[in-house]
Amino acid sequence: MSSFEDADTEETLTCLQMTVYHPGQQPNGIFQSIGFHKREKLPSREEVKFGRSSKVCNYTFQDRQVSRVQFSLQLFKKFDSSVLSFEIKNMSKRTSLIVDNRTLDFLHKVDLPDRCMIRFGDYQILMEKEDGVSLEFFETEFILSPRSLLQKNYWPPQNPIPEYCHSVWSSSQSTSPMETDENEL
Amino acid sequence: MSSFEDADTEETLTCLQMTVYHPGQQPNGIFQSIGFHKREKLPSREEVKFGRSSKVCNYTFQDRQVSRVQFSLQLFKKFDSSVLSFEIKNMSKRTSLIVDNRTLDFLHKVDLPDRCMIRFGDYQILMEKEDGVSLEFFETEFILSPRSLLQKNYWPPQNPIPEYCHSVWSSSQSTSPMETDENEL
Repeated sequence: MSSFEDADTEETLTCLQMTVYHPGQQPNGIFQSIGFHKREKLPSREEVKFGRSSKVCNYTFQDRQVSRVQFSLQLFKKFDSSVLSFEIKNMSKRTSLIVDNRTLDFLHKVDLPDRCMIRFGDYQILMEKEDGVSLEFFETEFILSPRSLLQKNYWPPQNPIPEYCHSVWSSSQSTSPMETDENEL
Repeated sequence: MSSFEDADTEETLTCLQMTVYHPGQQPNGIFQSIGFHKREKLPSREEVKFGRSSKVCNYTFQDRQVSRVQFSLQLFKKFDSSVLSFEIKNMSKRTSLIVDNRTLDFLHKVDLPDRCMIRFGDYQILMEKEDGVSLEFFETEFILSPRSLLQKNYWPPQNPIPEYCHSVWSSSQSTSPMETDENEL
């Protein structure tokens, strides 16, 4: 009991929750190496890489269309803030990365809004940040969505998720500029 | 000759020239592990780390007052530019990093101007970027300055470097806010 009472106060951790969807996720096991619904603690000094190569990436996608490193996340602190923020950078020469409605080419970077939609190819990742006190560490958590995240009423989600979802995001649109439908999202 | 003629056109590389100075550089060999006057080619996808730990840093300073990782550089491309740019992030919890006259605390980051002065503790690093075409690789080059870089007339260098230089930057000022003399620099 005394060791409990004398221990340092535990700091809450900033958590980046990532809800992922890919139309081919079920049969192909694209996300098989990602552990869903468990939080992973990472040092905030380290770059977090996403892509195909398990040698260099923290999180991998089992998909030949994905670049060895597709994109990276950097932790940083804004000058006017006391909590951690994220920066995202497109590390792929072949595929654009779309953050909300902004298209990032190779080595383009932006600061991530607290809630935003990331897309590349047929991948959709809804990123939501939950603030914590610690500056040394942060957490990640993955959730698998059974349906497309690009529904009207879902992103931005003013209304509850509808029972039946109709995807407006198909393979052929994956790296092309914004479509009329998407402007409404 | 034909292999020479058929080879891909060589792309020029962006070069970051770093002129370094520390008042204790001579007797203490602070910069002994840095190769001066030779360009090193690095992949632009990789973060470049500076600090005390040779395990994680690309460039190390032999100095116990330096953090294991003091700061890092990231390559990126601005949306309105075709060439590489650098971002700097303070990775030290203990020491502030000063970029020109802006103070960066732990995990603060800024985009580097093409020519700027970096300071932490008694260290001075004048960083100068020379643009190249390649986006895949860039180069670094270190130059050792025999005298302080914080002279009037030297930074910013409107005039030639004077023969005799008087340092306005001493140990006691290393992490404190700007002094009157420094505002003139």
